[in-house]
Amino acid sequence: MVIQTLTSETYPPDVDDAERKRLIEVIKDWAVANGLTVRPPPSLLAAEADPDGVLATNVPVTLFPSPFPRVCFQQAKAVQKAYNELYAKNLSLGLFRSDYMVHKDTTDSSSIPIVKQVEFNTIASSFGGLSSQTCSLHRFLSDTEYPYLKQPGGHARFDLPSNHSIKGLAGGMKAAFEAYGKSDLGLETCVIFLVQGGERNVFDQRHLEYALRSSTSPRIPVFRLPYSEILQRTRISDTPKRQLLYRLPSNPDKEFEVAVIYMRSGYDPSDYPDASAWEARYHLERSGAIKCPTVLTQLAGAKKVQQVLATPKLDPNSPSELSRFVPEDTQAWKDLWATFTNIYPMDDSEPGLEARKLALDPEQCKRYVLKPQREGGGNNCYKTSIPPFLKNLPATHWKSYILMELITPPPVSNIILRNGKLEQGGVICELGVYGTCVWDQGTGNVLHNEEAGYLLRTKGDQSEEGGVAAGFGCMDSCNLV
Amino acid sequence: MVIQTLTSETYPPDVDDAERKRLIEVIKDWAVANGLTVRPPPSLLAAEADPDGVLATNVPVTLFPSPFPRVCFQQAKAVQKAYNELYAKNLSLGLFRSDYMVHKDTTDSSSIPIVKQVEFNTIASSFGGLSSQTCSLHRFLSDTEYPYLKQPGGHARFDLPSNHSIKGLAGGMKAAFEAYGKSDLGLETCVIFLVQGGERNVFDQRHLEYALRSSTSPRIPVFRLPYSEILQRTRISDTPKRQLLYRLPSNPDKEFEVAVIYMRSGYDPSDYPDASAWEARYHLERSGAIKCPTVLTQLAGAKKVQQVLATPKLDPNSPSELSRFVPEDTQAWKDLWATFTNIYPMDDSEPGLEARKLALDPEQCKRYVLKPQREGGGNNCYKTSIPPFLKNLPATHWKSYILMELITPPPVSNIILRNGKLEQGGVICELGVYGTCVWDQGTGNVLHNEEAGYLLRTKGDQSEEGGVAAGFGCMDSCNLV
Repeated sequence: MVIQTLTSETYPPDVDDAERKRLIEVIKDWAVANGLTVRPPPSLLAAEADPDGVLATNVPVTLFPSPFPRVCFQQAKAVQKAYNELYAKNLSLGLFRSDYMVHKDTTDSSSIPIVKQVEFNTIASSFGGLSSQTCSLHRFLSDTEYPYLKQPGGHARFDLPSNHSIKGLAGGMKAAFEAYGKSDLGLETCVIFLVQGGERNVFDQRHLEYALRSSTSPRIPVFRLPYSEILQRTRISDTPKRQLLYRLPSNPDKEFEVAVIYMRSGYDPSDYPDASAWEARYHLERSGAIKCPTVLTQLAGAKKVQQVLATPKLDPNSPSELSRFVPEDTQAWKDLWATFTNIYPMDDSEPGLEARKLALDPEQCKRYVLKPQREGGGNNCYKTSIPPFLKNLPATHWKSYILMELITPPPVSNIILRNGKLEQGGVICELGVYGTCVWDQGTGNVLHNEEAGYLLRTKGDQSEEGGVAAGFGCMDSCNLV
Repeated sequence: MVIQTLTSETYPPDVDDAERKRLIEVIKDWAVANGLTVRPPPSLLAAEADPDGVLATNVPVTLFPSPFPRVCFQQAKAVQKAYNELYAKNLSLGLFRSDYMVHKDTTDSSSIPIVKQVEFNTIASSFGGLSSQTCSLHRFLSDTEYPYLKQPGGHARFDLPSNHSIKGLAGGMKAAFEAYGKSDLGLETCVIFLVQGGERNVFDQRHLEYALRSSTSPRIPVFRLPYSEILQRTRISDTPKRQLLYRLPSNPDKEFEVAVIYMRSGYDPSDYPDASAWEARYHLERSGAIKCPTVLTQLAGAKKVQQVLATPKLDPNSPSELSRFVPEDTQAWKDLWATFTNIYPMDDSEPGLEARKLALDPEQCKRYVLKPQREGGGNNCYKTSIPPFLKNLPATHWKSYILMELITPPPVSNIILRNGKLEQGGVICELGVYGTCVWDQGTGNVLHNEEAGYLLRTKGDQSEEGGVAAGFGCMDSCNLV
């Protein structure tokens, strides 16, 4: 039943040229009026055409919320607090996002779809600012536009869950800000957003800042600090608490004590061009500020950790790696375990040797993806590309990869508005669930642990010529089915 | 006391290059994230650089809210309902804006400043959508940025009145929508925004639409109709009620009955390029839709009407023209009268002959401005330009102008961000107060009469070389002093 709806021929609704024109106008204006925006990409406008950086454009977005199985949505939301605790570290703030795809056993048509984890993000989990706005856009369209399309049905078919990702993520930062407490030095405390230079996705970040700034008790000063200016703008006080102190570039007499440092940079190799960039990261790490994330929490987001937790047990009676952190007879353990797809090491352990066989087999390899220890996509090796890739790689390097069983989402079709043009075709939807956690390992107390809204990112499934541009995602929201 | 503050050397605060850079960044991002935006003007981006019309930019705006005398602000707000009733017409919707400048008697330093009316707008009173957002921007800056400027003081000096112009104007439209009632034809009723083609100020209008759309009881469908498509998209039912019927261009099977037609076009000569444009206006006027405004209400906004109401009495014992509409012994009469500056006809009546003497006198003319019957500025003739202008104009045409005593606002200085660049210098602030009115002349009932927020528009005072660009206004808000 669920699958029939997911793959229905009538979704998205047939829309003719006049309807497309109208939806484009409505979406373009709504997005700019409500900050569902980015600074224009070079493909849309050459940088020299806007020397003062004053132009903006709507983000790429689907014309309709994509159908998404309700059971999967509920499953992913329900497991988030267990994930938060699993990854939480000593008095640090986690703003996490656990990414999933819907998995449907293709060999059993009566099977219920479930979500399987793609990855767990522990640093710079982005799009929480734009995701709330995208849900609001699709809700606006379902109230005002979809009911008047020629194709009948419309309104009743849209079941759009609420999404509090902006408030949720800001709430996590506020909890950390409060946990830090007042300054012993008599300074005002603040939150630093550590950003990349020339960030085009600035409005996504600004929405979180504005939500945080809207707190009146306490008032929370927020400042954006480019990663490259860490050592210039901050110093660590020569005290046991090693407070991180920040001076306003626009008014250096004004010094703040940094309660929370929220990193929207520091995860990509290009963020570390030289030794001083590494020194800057060490400088932050040794400071008393609450890091979001700490180096340890950032590393916990590596694929290798995901693999260690998720590797199938060869002996059913041996304890799982996961049980070192979550007792095996608990609901949390079962919920977490259910989201794992099979992931193998590529080392010379017993499961590793098994994985090498699967990866090199010309038939078996079609069910797998090989991933390095990097954030985001673009570095992965799929299916039949795996054997030749491995053969060109010294075997001593194989262990830096993990082998992950592919998730097989049910087919979904949608229309995407990107740079003023429509693209239509098969799409793949990835659900991210945000979680916020403040944890004091010293006392063992979880000070704050919340599920914090969701993201639906959609990209072309590369199944058709002239369909949705491959490799470029867009914002989407869930239409529960 | 008030004047000392208004002209204080320390306002706006001294801001150095680092502070300017920071304020520009903060304002640019906040404006786009919150829809304080326009489609880019040709001076910023050639139209061909954005063929799909997907780019937007922040509106020109002051870095600080301009100082504005509290007594004047209160005076202008208090008189708005009296103005609404003065201009209200039979079951029509008025979305009015009464524009003022602060007048300070330059010959008496102890005199209290008062507001004097510049004009009364009865059609397409714009900027209500962006004005609320501008107030929010300045409030955000006063919470987050001004307190950290080098120049001390800051926070305590900002007294920013709330501004509900978006909700207020949408509330007026909703009241008219409800007054129209259900369709006798069994159709859904709707509101039409009648717009100009290629409108750059579209987000100002969209904010009003979204506020109207946010009503759930009743739900209010809103559609934008270009003026040039009136006759193509609408027809009048052949019934005594002459309902105006509108078909969706994107789905012509779907027909709505138009309850309210809100004109954001139809006021400029360029809106009437040919006979069919006049026919279209007549078509709307004879329909049963509630017009905002009717032709009569639009004409009531002419300078000539303002002059007739405001012409000083030559005989103190004769009744004023205003007393034909508002009894002379009422508070409303006194409040309205207090906002009038001296305005004279230029015809051959007794006051007209007096005015001609003033206008042609090389000394007296310096206190006056000569205005034709047009909306907006750009067509006026000031001070010593008046005598030569009149001498080149056939005397038979003089009566189409009115002669208005100049209002002398106290000097104010501010900084304006426009197209990514700052301009600093003397400015002139014009306060607009919005009013909404639904009036049934048949029953004599005022169904709705509300003061609906405010606008502060600021432009250069042309007093300095290299100061604020002349002729171009920007958005501002009031800092009450």
